Amino acid sequence: MSEILSDAGLDQIFRDARTHSVWQDTGVSDVLLEAIYDLAKMGPTSANCSPMRVLFLRSKEAKERLRPALDAGNVDKTMAAPATAILAYDMEFYEKLPALFPHADARSWFAGKPKAIEQTAQRNGSLQGAYFIIAARALGLDCGPMSGFNRTKVDEVFFADTPWRSNFLCNLGHGDPEKLHPRSPRLDFDEACRLL
Amino acid sequence: MSEILSDAGLDQIFRDARTHSVWQDTGVSDVLLEAIYDLAKMGPTSANCSPMRVLFLRSKEAKERLRPALDAGNVDKTMAAPATAILAYDMEFYEKLPALFPHADARSWFAGKPKAIEQTAQRNGSLQGAYFIIAARALGLDCGPMSGFNRTKVDEVFFADTPWRSNFLCNLGHGDPEKLHPRSPRLDFDEACRLL
Repeated sequence: MSEILSDAGLDQIFRDARTHSVWQDTGVSDVLLEAIYDLAKMGPTSANCSPMRVLFLRSKEAKERLRPALDAGNVDKTMAAPATAILAYDMEFYEKLPALFPHADARSWFAGKPKAIEQTAQRNGSLQGAYFIIAARALGLDCGPMSGFNRTKVDEVFFADTPWRSNFLCNLGHGDPEKLHPRSPRLDFDEACRLL
Repeated sequence: MSEILSDAGLDQIFRDARTHSVWQDTGVSDVLLEAIYDLAKMGPTSANCSPMRVLFLRSKEAKERLRPALDAGNVDKTMAAPATAILAYDMEFYEKLPALFPHADARSWFAGKPKAIEQTAQRNGSLQGAYFIIAARALGLDCGPMSGFNRTKVDEVFFADTPWRSNFLCNLGHGDPEKLHPRSPRLDFDEACRLL
């Protein structure tokens, strides 16, 4: 039976972790980006469908291609971040199911069924996006996840002629803790949960 | 700057954690269920919108109400699990935004905009569902998340006349490691990620 994670560990991935907008001038290595994915990929998805795809933008040139798609309030922090991940999902994820879920003909549950494809890609791509955020924090990075951008524009610029579709963005780096605002409140257990 | 989580911690929440279907005969206390939520609620959502709602089924009677909505392959394991969480989202989540995001009139971004409501509830409710899974694992529990059920039926049985909508289910307890199948493969970094 597993023990409870250390208090320091719980603080790092949940209790003290914050969304950052101001970044220290430290880089993020490709090895670390790969390590985030290699943890996040282990999280569960339905039928192991694993629809998340990630495009990491590190170069100034790549960031400039993203700029016109960003909401005004997200431009400066994204341009300054050491790396920005476009968390996407693959609308043809089911083509990998013969390898990912070999015990059944899981491909047939999705091929030609656009509604099942979309729901499964969105739900599981978002689950994996959250594993990605927690994995980055577990590896000592700070995250700045964002939904404020033009999805159609991002897909046109980065995913034309591919089945990848953008879900959300996440800046990655080491944030400046001095620049954080006070944390916003959360809903109490009694406001969000019921016991039967 | 944060350090990297211990190897034991990374194993517990990602690398060694598995989806369980066979449960040990140990209960899960209400205190522990509350502790899962209290960690998961800290994870980031867009504009702190926090749409996830959770209905915990612990009693035999509550489980029996769920039974007819389950896919055949999910019945036995769900009936045997110490607790089953219905991970849902609130289609009126924006009514909490004046408290959760007081710096702006964020309620007006959603009220009367069904498409924005649905996309935001689904994406962020799924992110929070993943935080929930990782939080349960961090607290020493095993999870059995499931998409194989009739969403309409679950909403009729448990959420009639409420704005809550089911997203996925998650059995909770202490799994029997002897009964696990070998782990299915994952996509390599080069199959799922690109660097620009």
